[in-house]
Amino acid sequence: MATGSNLQILLKSRPEGAPGLENFEQKVVPVPAPREGEVLMRILYLSLDPYMRGRMSAEKSYAQPAALGEPMVGRTVAEIIESRHPKYQVGDIVLGGSGWQQYAVADGAGVRRLEAQAAPPSTALGVLGMPGMTAYAGLLEIGRPAAGETLVVAAAAGAVGSVVGQIGKIKGCRVVGVAGGADKCRYVTAELGFDACIDHRARDLAERLGQACPAGVDIYFENVGGAVQQAVWPLLNDFARVPVCGLIAQYNAAAPVAGPDLVTVLRKRLTLRGFIVTDFAAKHADFQRDMGEWVRSGKVKYREDVVEGLENAPAAFLGLLQGRNFGKMLVRVGR
Amino acid sequence: MATGSNLQILLKSRPEGAPGLENFEQKVVPVPAPREGEVLMRILYLSLDPYMRGRMSAEKSYAQPAALGEPMVGRTVAEIIESRHPKYQVGDIVLGGSGWQQYAVADGAGVRRLEAQAAPPSTALGVLGMPGMTAYAGLLEIGRPAAGETLVVAAAAGAVGSVVGQIGKIKGCRVVGVAGGADKCRYVTAELGFDACIDHRARDLAERLGQACPAGVDIYFENVGGAVQQAVWPLLNDFARVPVCGLIAQYNAAAPVAGPDLVTVLRKRLTLRGFIVTDFAAKHADFQRDMGEWVRSGKVKYREDVVEGLENAPAAFLGLLQGRNFGKMLVRVGR
Repeated sequence: MATGSNLQILLKSRPEGAPGLENFEQKVVPVPAPREGEVLMRILYLSLDPYMRGRMSAEKSYAQPAALGEPMVGRTVAEIIESRHPKYQVGDIVLGGSGWQQYAVADGAGVRRLEAQAAPPSTALGVLGMPGMTAYAGLLEIGRPAAGETLVVAAAAGAVGSVVGQIGKIKGCRVVGVAGGADKCRYVTAELGFDACIDHRARDLAERLGQACPAGVDIYFENVGGAVQQAVWPLLNDFARVPVCGLIAQYNAAAPVAGPDLVTVLRKRLTLRGFIVTDFAAKHADFQRDMGEWVRSGKVKYREDVVEGLENAPAAFLGLLQGRNFGKMLVRVGR
Repeated sequence: MATGSNLQILLKSRPEGAPGLENFEQKVVPVPAPREGEVLMRILYLSLDPYMRGRMSAEKSYAQPAALGEPMVGRTVAEIIESRHPKYQVGDIVLGGSGWQQYAVADGAGVRRLEAQAAPPSTALGVLGMPGMTAYAGLLEIGRPAAGETLVVAAAAGAVGSVVGQIGKIKGCRVVGVAGGADKCRYVTAELGFDACIDHRARDLAERLGQACPAGVDIYFENVGGAVQQAVWPLLNDFARVPVCGLIAQYNAAAPVAGPDLVTVLRKRLTLRGFIVTDFAAKHADFQRDMGEWVRSGKVKYREDVVEGLENAPAAFLGLLQGRNFGKMLVRVGR
């Protein structure tokens, strides 16, 4: 039986505008004891993702807000260190949603065993997990890429954007990324094989984007909103598709941010569609088959940005919202 | 051979903001003579439609702008009064796009003979023509109505909106119209069978709409933009569909009008899609079959607002842009 202390990071208060460290607080509680039918898990990795900004707010969105005074919500990869559940054994590695803490119990609901000797377990939080599935479903189901079309991907070095662009290349598109800074842009083109990548901090962003998209834009995979969206919008071709996956530049806005002019949506017969990954649960088996093969064969590459120690999760999360991460943002909670 | 004068209404200048009578000018030219392979047509009806506002502007939209100094563009029903074309006979009634004039020649391209003894020929410009097809394709292909869902239709008494709502009823929806004034609202509910209709001039438009849509809104058929859109937006349910058919309240804006917040599009997983009728040409046979039957059986009713005399077309068109028409706006050019 495990004894000792369990560090948790609680949501202390809800941010007005940009969140800060003051919205979180540490708490140390005893490691919980599993009851009959439960397992005790030691968290190995916590995933940090932009959607968590929404959970910090009080408004109901597609999911309930995180509760004040409770550990922040989040997806985790964990090792089972004690089992009173017939289907799990000590040493099993599982994917779950245990949130921002070092230890947690579960009764098996919401937990899925990861295959040993498959990909590294952290990928279940990234390229082979929710962000990868988000990219796969959003691009293929809403973007509907055709060979020869031009795809623009915002947040191109991020966990979702990097996969979107690589699938776009597999489907024969010209793929243009937008990312923050020269290092990320170099990675996106040299490592991931995008045709071009524009630094969104460039003063002449719109002009550079236009030059990188000489045939216009058929798909804009929207992860950020704001200035990138405004630069892409005039480049959209007739019948362009805009999967609206994220709007990270707008999540801290105190009031609703005006969207693009609908007269353009009408004249160009654009399709804008918001989605979240769970809307496409029916495609999960296809995703696992295709993405598993693409990752194994090296057609889809990934990069992780791992922060050591749960106590550093709040600062890492705040950095993520500002684009300071370089690759899928993970916290190594335990080894 | 026809002789005499042919009144034309030319596009004299392009409006900045709201168009006025000064943007049009009358011209009298000789009735043209058909060459071998051509027919001479006497125009019976000219259709006036909101899309014409776009054609008055210089920017290329989905169609070329109307040319300055030429007759304004428009769909027409005409009688063939002289034929040098083997497929057409004097007395044939044809649908075409002869524009704002009393007489025109055509070589058969872009002209379609209307069946005698079918519906009145004017309906080929309305419920059985482009506006009806716009309603049919936009609602069924983009709105995808399911029985029990709530459909809100802007410009509910208009040529498109009136048909959208009636198809919505056929498909089992709760249908709520928005129209300008008590007379139109009464017509929409008492004659067309909508479940409710809200006067968009009401100060408490948003509140009334909310009361008329107790289960929220699953489809918003967008014809107008502006204040009606803003009132509907908060009522949209998750996964709501918004066919963007028209934005008549915004066509005169000098600068782009801000659209709805995309964070809502994301959170509610909305689909917004702009379209024009020709995008759905593949559905035209389905439309003719279904709408023909619905009109014959009285399931779909229509109302025409007929102005006498081509010289009155400019004023009638300006009234249309302000919602002064009551039913499909037509100009009777000749008898």
